[in-house]
Amino acid sequence: MATLVTKKSSPIEDSEALQKAFKGWGTDEKSVIEILGHRNVYQRQQIRKSYQEIYQEDILKRLESELSGDFERAVYRWMLEPADRDAVLVNVAIKDGNKGYNVIVEIVCVLSPEEVLAMRRAYQNRYKHSLEEDVAAHTTGHLRQLLVGLVGSFRYGGDEINPRLAKTEADILHESIKEKKGNYEEAIRIITTRSKTQLLATLNRYRDDHGTSITKKLLDNASDDFHKALHTAIRCINDHKKYYEKVMRSALKRVGTDEDGLTRVVVTRAEKDLKDIKELYYKRNSVHLEDEVAKEISGDYKKFLLTLLGK
Amino acid sequence: MATLVTKKSSPIEDSEALQKAFKGWGTDEKSVIEILGHRNVYQRQQIRKSYQEIYQEDILKRLESELSGDFERAVYRWMLEPADRDAVLVNVAIKDGNKGYNVIVEIVCVLSPEEVLAMRRAYQNRYKHSLEEDVAAHTTGHLRQLLVGLVGSFRYGGDEINPRLAKTEADILHESIKEKKGNYEEAIRIITTRSKTQLLATLNRYRDDHGTSITKKLLDNASDDFHKALHTAIRCINDHKKYYEKVMRSALKRVGTDEDGLTRVVVTRAEKDLKDIKELYYKRNSVHLEDEVAKEISGDYKKFLLTLLGK
Repeated sequence: MATLVTKKSSPIEDSEALQKAFKGWGTDEKSVIEILGHRNVYQRQQIRKSYQEIYQEDILKRLESELSGDFERAVYRWMLEPADRDAVLVNVAIKDGNKGYNVIVEIVCVLSPEEVLAMRRAYQNRYKHSLEEDVAAHTTGHLRQLLVGLVGSFRYGGDEINPRLAKTEADILHESIKEKKGNYEEAIRIITTRSKTQLLATLNRYRDDHGTSITKKLLDNASDDFHKALHTAIRCINDHKKYYEKVMRSALKRVGTDEDGLTRVVVTRAEKDLKDIKELYYKRNSVHLEDEVAKEISGDYKKFLLTLLGK
Repeated sequence: MATLVTKKSSPIEDSEALQKAFKGWGTDEKSVIEILGHRNVYQRQQIRKSYQEIYQEDILKRLESELSGDFERAVYRWMLEPADRDAVLVNVAIKDGNKGYNVIVEIVCVLSPEEVLAMRRAYQNRYKHSLEEDVAAHTTGHLRQLLVGLVGSFRYGGDEINPRLAKTEADILHESIKEKKGNYEEAIRIITTRSKTQLLATLNRYRDDHGTSITKKLLDNASDDFHKALHTAIRCINDHKKYYEKVMRSALKRVGTDEDGLTRVVVTRAEKDLKDIKELYYKRNSVHLEDEVAKEISGDYKKFLLTLLGK
């Protein structure tokens, strides 16, 4: 379930109120948060459209010049149409080098097959390159094979499971990763091409037959970028909410908060399942996610994220 | 330019005439050819729809039971909606093993990026698997990397060329394939991910800098399936009409005609550029393609293909 609390409003009134908040010396950030922090994706696109019509200006550009820092980045990502926002996140991740691989994996593994396509289209519109082209040019070897495979995959979305295949491929995965220098070709094939439903059956079968989860097994030798990316892919396919709980935990618990991770999870999940992620967070950490967020960050950035968290 | 000669008609009249041709003992193949051989893709889909409404029967099933052999297969493929037809062709090719790799490569390299997506969707609807899943499960090593890369690629469709990149990547391609046991990772990356426009610039640059075309160079060591597939990919991207001319030539000149190749080219290109392919064929062989077709095949199959060839 979502955490976003929406309010009814007209895009014209919203545009006028925002224009008022921008006017004069300094910006009325409180109004910006009050409005944009309570509008769903459709309302936000309507605001963007009507602001353009009334003031002949892209509200995104205006927000960029009015706001700053993590707050600006969070609002900007929140205002972009989701496929376009994910294209931006993936592009930033590509440029980030090895820190960013997990973000690329996360986005293409959590999105539905159709959403991945929409994001790839948005990526092309924005950067005049294909996503797989940029990912492939920045990586080599197994890591490239895995990332390009995940990006290029248009997984079958049906519910059929082939139990015999789940058994065979659980064994192949086990063979493929049991040694540090394993032959990963088959593991890459399975993880990048099978439907998510089939993969869940295979991962369950792995647990049943080998007495441990494949992610635990992978962690034992998750020392390089390829292993980390494979680990992330399996976790996102297996249970993306649990994965996001961990991203939030890592972002908040480390010395110096990881604002990018924090913003990404809140902005991409607030309208989808951030409530479930919050519950998982409380179960795992015995503190409320909002309290932790309130402790670690400050100012308008904090107010905005807490608003999206439904506080 | 197309070779198909279309005639105006109503789908209802066509359905009635076809039903009459099916009726009684034996089929009136001449009428089937006269009607279906002169209808464009839109008209054919309308006929299928209206035949279903009038007779509560799929005309495709009826055609399968009324016709036989190569003629049946050609009419069946002609009647399918193009994305669906290409999905069928690719699926047959996957089952064909090493004979079929070139067909997979041909289809995904000649279609536009959007057409490839439509075909992948059709493939899923029909076979309840993703195309990349089936291709990957039937191949290994470099061949798998190449085929899965080509299938998964959603190439950028813009016209921008980066001349510096063309130079660098022409050199990378040259390095990559100059030895028999080269490192093909980079060649695969370039061929599977770059836009077609960029690839044309790179292939031209290759010719300028290395004094020969990359396809000639590849032919020198095109002994295995991977090299053949790479060769086919580059030829289809470089000049697909020239490629089709060669497919026709090989299909007709060998002992025992290759009806599958012949049908595939005629059925997939009759509404697009078969006229250009015919002209290339005449230039290259000093005989008319239709005359060669008329000599090598017979019966209703021959009459149907010649009709699509605009005879």
